[in-house]
Amino acid sequence: MGSALARASLAAGHRVTVWNRSLAKTTALVDHGADLAASVADAAEASDVLIVCLFDHRSVHDVLDPVVDRLAGREVINLTTTSPDGARELARWAADHDATYLDGGIMAIPEMVGTAQSKVLYSGSQRVFDQNRPLLETWGSAEYFGDDAGMASLYDLALLASMYAMFAGFFHGAAMVGAAGVPAKEFAVRAADWLRAMAPAVIDYADVIDGGDYAVPGQQSLEFSDISDIVAASGAHGVSTELVDVVQRLIHRQIDAGHGAEGFARVIESLKAVAA
Amino acid sequence: MGSALARASLAAGHRVTVWNRSLAKTTALVDHGADLAASVADAAEASDVLIVCLFDHRSVHDVLDPVVDRLAGREVINLTTTSPDGARELARWAADHDATYLDGGIMAIPEMVGTAQSKVLYSGSQRVFDQNRPLLETWGSAEYFGDDAGMASLYDLALLASMYAMFAGFFHGAAMVGAAGVPAKEFAVRAADWLRAMAPAVIDYADVIDGGDYAVPGQQSLEFSDISDIVAASGAHGVSTELVDVVQRLIHRQIDAGHGAEGFARVIESLKAVAA
Repeated sequence: MGSALARASLAAGHRVTVWNRSLAKTTALVDHGADLAASVADAAEASDVLIVCLFDHRSVHDVLDPVVDRLAGREVINLTTTSPDGARELARWAADHDATYLDGGIMAIPEMVGTAQSKVLYSGSQRVFDQNRPLLETWGSAEYFGDDAGMASLYDLALLASMYAMFAGFFHGAAMVGAAGVPAKEFAVRAADWLRAMAPAVIDYADVIDGGDYAVPGQQSLEFSDISDIVAASGAHGVSTELVDVVQRLIHRQIDAGHGAEGFARVIESLKAVAA
Repeated sequence: MGSALARASLAAGHRVTVWNRSLAKTTALVDHGADLAASVADAAEASDVLIVCLFDHRSVHDVLDPVVDRLAGREVINLTTTSPDGARELARWAADHDATYLDGGIMAIPEMVGTAQSKVLYSGSQRVFDQNRPLLETWGSAEYFGDDAGMASLYDLALLASMYAMFAGFFHGAAMVGAAGVPAKEFAVRAADWLRAMAPAVIDYADVIDGGDYAVPGQQSLEFSDISDIVAASGAHGVSTELVDVVQRLIHRQIDAGHGAEGFARVIESLKAVAA
């Protein structure tokens, strides 16, 4: 991902100094015009704006704590996937060392960076966001979610949670038809169309959730949303039911509480139950 | 759903006789030109082609068993959501009573029936499919999956499993940002875009699955797909982790088996494990 960011920045004419734990990963970037930093310290001093894209929250500290005195007066834009609390901690850590912090969550795979499909969510310092907007836009459309450094991460993780559940659902479906000898590709081309067609329905569910009345007419009821057929057919074809069991449990928790005639959107209450 | 099918058929100029347990549901259809059957027996005798759309597999028997002698020589197109084995049972039941059976799975909500977004999957009698193609196309694009009456249902349930998992993932994400005060609608418009953008990735996963080598280069690894951040942030915001826990478990079952450096598509092996 770091390489994709650097490549998009270079393509847009920005001067970029690169550093990576593994020297081999920087070779192609140097071929594309990047300067090579011999050390993290050199990379930190090469620019007023430091773009960080590492494995996780801990690796940000592992890499930057040894050179933290070089960060004073600089802007740190961290695109490493971290938790909301991790982003907030890094914002405080940066402030403690006189650096300004902007957190970013990349909603794209590396191949998408720099294309119209790529989105990056930001929160933290609005000044860093505004002043570096042309650079940020080289990676994808940039949106700012406020000065709570954790908000971009929260949005990022919430969107990723939706995506991982969708992919898990695809694998489940592919395993079902796969058990009857259907190649995954045959299922996938149909699943991709189907999921794309159904995804916008979440906007209708959101209207019901925000409206605060799960009983508004015209919705698919929770009772009708029972997925016993899916669970049974999965089991009958030797597919693990653990994923669909959870979905069924979330549906039935609301039915069991007496809301079976209300809309499917009420499933969100099963997930909020811990907080209730 | 039955009303939507009848309405689309009427709009295309087909002559339709309707019956419903609840007379009130047929009134609007009669206003649109449908004939009203006073009983199931009258409905069965009104046409050579009987379209069945009921609550579940059992209700098909409940409604049609008492008039099964009227089905001889007729074609039964069943669009009720049933299990693959349920569809196969109905195909045998129809054959036992000299009727020809086509099973259909509707990949649409009622509002979509008759539009370009609606798809209906069929399996069972190819003759019934071919001869009634103009009628079937009034409901949405029609695809035939072979003479195993259960195959359309298996595809249907597999696609629905993917969809329900995607929706559950949306509710999970909406609960996460909702805990920080973000309205569901604000999340939903972004989630709809994001899920639509990511859905086609399932085709790449399918290529890996069918290729039989989860270690082909260029994929996101299972290790990188760890969703601890999502699980932790969910818990920290009071959101139930039961859905994301399952996804994490499916990922880690493969990592624990020593495949952490292989691609994310290998998650399907966690779901097929029961059969192994």
